Amino acid sequence: MQSPEEQILRKILRAAGGRRPGPLRLGIGDDAAVFAPRPGHQLLLTCDWFLEGTHFLRHKHPADAVGWKSVARATSDIAAMGGSPRCLLLCLALPRGATGRWLDGFLRGFGRAARRFACPLAGGDTTRAERILISVTVVGEAPSGTVLTRSGARTGDVVFVSGRLGAAEAGLRKLRRQSGPARPGDPALARHLYPEPRLALGRWLREERLASAMMDLSDGLSSDLPRLCAASGRGAQIVAERLPLFAGNVWRGTTRIERQRLALHGGDDYELLFTVPRKHRKRIPERFAGLELTAIGRITAKPGVTIVDRAGRESRLRAGGWDPFRGK
Amino acid sequence: MQSPEEQILRKILRAAGGRRPGPLRLGIGDDAAVFAPRPGHQLLLTCDWFLEGTHFLRHKHPADAVGWKSVARATSDIAAMGGSPRCLLLCLALPRGATGRWLDGFLRGFGRAARRFACPLAGGDTTRAERILISVTVVGEAPSGTVLTRSGARTGDVVFVSGRLGAAEAGLRKLRRQSGPARPGDPALARHLYPEPRLALGRWLREERLASAMMDLSDGLSSDLPRLCAASGRGAQIVAERLPLFAGNVWRGTTRIERQRLALHGGDDYELLFTVPRKHRKRIPERFAGLELTAIGRITAKPGVTIVDRAGRESRLRAGGWDPFRGK
Repeated sequence: MQSPEEQILRKILRAAGGRRPGPLRLGIGDDAAVFAPRPGHQLLLTCDWFLEGTHFLRHKHPADAVGWKSVARATSDIAAMGGSPRCLLLCLALPRGATGRWLDGFLRGFGRAARRFACPLAGGDTTRAERILISVTVVGEAPSGTVLTRSGARTGDVVFVSGRLGAAEAGLRKLRRQSGPARPGDPALARHLYPEPRLALGRWLREERLASAMMDLSDGLSSDLPRLCAASGRGAQIVAERLPLFAGNVWRGTTRIERQRLALHGGDDYELLFTVPRKHRKRIPERFAGLELTAIGRITAKPGVTIVDRAGRESRLRAGGWDPFRGK
Repeated sequence: MQSPEEQILRKILRAAGGRRPGPLRLGIGDDAAVFAPRPGHQLLLTCDWFLEGTHFLRHKHPADAVGWKSVARATSDIAAMGGSPRCLLLCLALPRGATGRWLDGFLRGFGRAARRFACPLAGGDTTRAERILISVTVVGEAPSGTVLTRSGARTGDVVFVSGRLGAAEAGLRKLRRQSGPARPGDPALARHLYPEPRLALGRWLREERLASAMMDLSDGLSSDLPRLCAASGRGAQIVAERLPLFAGNVWRGTTRIERQRLALHGGDDYELLFTVPRKHRKRIPERFAGLELTAIGRITAKPGVTIVDRAGRESRLRAGGWDPFRGK
């Protein structure tokens, strides 16, 4: 007879596609997973919380989207270094009411993301808790000495972002306003529920050695750009007019000012923020595999991040993004 | 000005001893940690929950012990494969009341364990939650193709355990009975509060190729031995009289029957359970670096685990260890 924990493990195993997926020498079911790194490569290690109440609401967010996003956001950290995800570990704590249908939906989204990003489940830990608690560790790889860090930006480098900013936060706000749960197919919620880590772009920038520094936008541009600048010992000046605001029918009714605020301070976009030396500026296309790439400013010698508005006035950009420890 | 999250990160950084500890090419502060694996080695990956309410109680367990144990239990999974820990990731979620003295105590124990096991902090994630939530990922290494798994036990192999069993569970029971918090120095609680992963023993067994299968005892012998047997497609017969029961003054008053029950079903000992082919039986010393090694039975062709009592009666050993999903 299987214990309840073994039944849950069996479900997870099925969703992961068996005990020895992908590059793993030994998958789930032993004390630790065994992974064979590729010669000449460095490993990239990252882990991310995804907690009921803090990062998602059980009655609002579909279990499938929770599964997808828990993989996507950790994988985005690998994209941000220019690496390739190789495998992941899942720590999952479940209340009594979430081991049936909720778990099935979660594992569906989780498994789809793991296959999509070629990042099989290697192991993890399950336990009981009063809320759904998720922690995902992703192991990635990149050829030794080639990773793109936050600290390489130099004065005069051009600051780029991929995609359009603010749509995820706008989706979250729509979801908060509406009374019922999210419809998984709602296009206004797509970027909030099912973010896409920019793996191909990150790898291309690393391979072509076009970027001097890179990170992913998880907490919002106004929080994340100062981090890149601080790590590089520089500052930045960005131009409000150039920000790639989200658009489209589903957002009709949002003013330009609102959309600009969302682009500056909205979190959870998982687009890439990267800097490009001026000599490589021309080699950055307007689109990479359909994804817009936009120059929004430049790196300055002077520390601090400023923003230039339509009238040409420059002001300090204050962090308005996500900080879980700041009172809201 | 630092955000509250940055202040917490700074504390964690200090405890971890800076941004580039040990074998890490890039430590905390970027999107992912960069780790250079040793040529010819495989990686061992494991993660473990350590949750307030489930695994510890804030008013009973000293923060220092919570920090130590959260590292020790995940590191024990690396010991169980015969590997060496190389670095770890910490996911930490804190309620408002735990970012001051509690966090300082936690990081003291955490940092001491990380140094003791030569396993520096490489990265992680912090957020806010209503309870203290901890998830630790440990990355270990072992020369390729040498790890000791659960699945290698063969019929006739001798079943060994290290140390003495049941003391951690006895400590937990004492702590539950007493009204106040644990005194960190209480010898009756030492095994419960400050477990020692058996890293040197695990490595020695792997290097000498003496063991056919191995795992660590985290949920109790009666839960863990059947897992090793199932993974190996075998069964086991153990002898009650041979079980290394915990002893010593601090336990006076506990009957032999009680101590035997704790040795069979008590969790959290983090001793090693391993099987040795008969031809190597003589090469296992009575003690390894002061740690007792005891033959408690043998692997059988017939599945299932049985126990032989003093009178020579054999009966099925039922799992009585820790399963968080079983109603208690």
